[in-house]
Amino acid sequence: MRLRRRDDPSLEAVTYRPIGHVRSAPRRAPAGGWRDVESSIVIEDEFGAGLAGIEEYGHVWVVLALHGVAEEERRLLRRSPPGAPGEVGVFALRTQMRPNPIGISAVRLLAVEGTTLRVRGLDAIDGTSVLDIKPYIPYYDSVPDASVPDWIGHP
Amino acid sequence: MRLRRRDDPSLEAVTYRPIGHVRSAPRRAPAGGWRDVESSIVIEDEFGAGLAGIEEYGHVWVVLALHGVAEEERRLLRRSPPGAPGEVGVFALRTQMRPNPIGISAVRLLAVEGTTLRVRGLDAIDGTSVLDIKPYIPYYDSVPDASVPDWIGHP
Repeated sequence: MRLRRRDDPSLEAVTYRPIGHVRSAPRRAPAGGWRDVESSIVIEDEFGAGLAGIEEYGHVWVVLALHGVAEEERRLLRRSPPGAPGEVGVFALRTQMRPNPIGISAVRLLAVEGTTLRVRGLDAIDGTSVLDIKPYIPYYDSVPDASVPDWIGHP
Repeated sequence: MRLRRRDDPSLEAVTYRPIGHVRSAPRRAPAGGWRDVESSIVIEDEFGAGLAGIEEYGHVWVVLALHGVAEEERRLLRRSPPGAPGEVGVFALRTQMRPNPIGISAVRLLAVEGTTLRVRGLDAIDGTSVLDIKPYIPYYDSVPDASVPDWIGHP
């Protein structure tokens, strides 16, 4: 089944230009978690037309480019998260320290003011780059009974 | 509030190298949708250690780099999707034709065979690049009652 090679087009690097950025008060993760944090997503004017109709959704996905992840942190493929029985691979964790530091965050859409989205629950510090906004659609995105390991806990 | 400028670091382009690719039978979207389609995600050997523990999750997120989206399709910010009362912005749609053609797809994890994940429900054609794998965690990801516009229908 390993028909692909290093020179396969599907392994070529891809480049994205952010469409906006996060304006948020916290400069680090709040002790109580991000659930109640309200922040703004400022979309560049040139992309503003792409927001038409987004106010009809209650929740949106924010796709983030997480800066500030050092090269050696991107190369470390296993970690020992609190509560886990041992080392766990980064693809089995939501840590931002991963080979491609892309974050996805489902947030409540509170208001749309011009090209700024007011949201609640975005786990991103001030200045984080935004690559994409997508509507949250339960048919595709909601799996309430998805199983997780016993050691996964929440704030 | 528009304190940021074009030269702001949060608007600098980012580059990612795929960690793997999709092996899937369909070469276009199936008439009945992707829900029952089974496919494989082949992770490059060098990233295999990052998969440790992923088999403990029932569902995972696949973050995709969607190739084959032409430059002019990335620039078109509004579309007229079937059923919608008029034009809708691309950030209010899940179309792959968007400024940064990144896809996110929640899929059932069927099996892990070495560095290959067998999954069900991945809406990606054969050869699609994979940027990241994340565990699906209902506490963060599941919003069963998220509101959507009336015109949103499903296959």
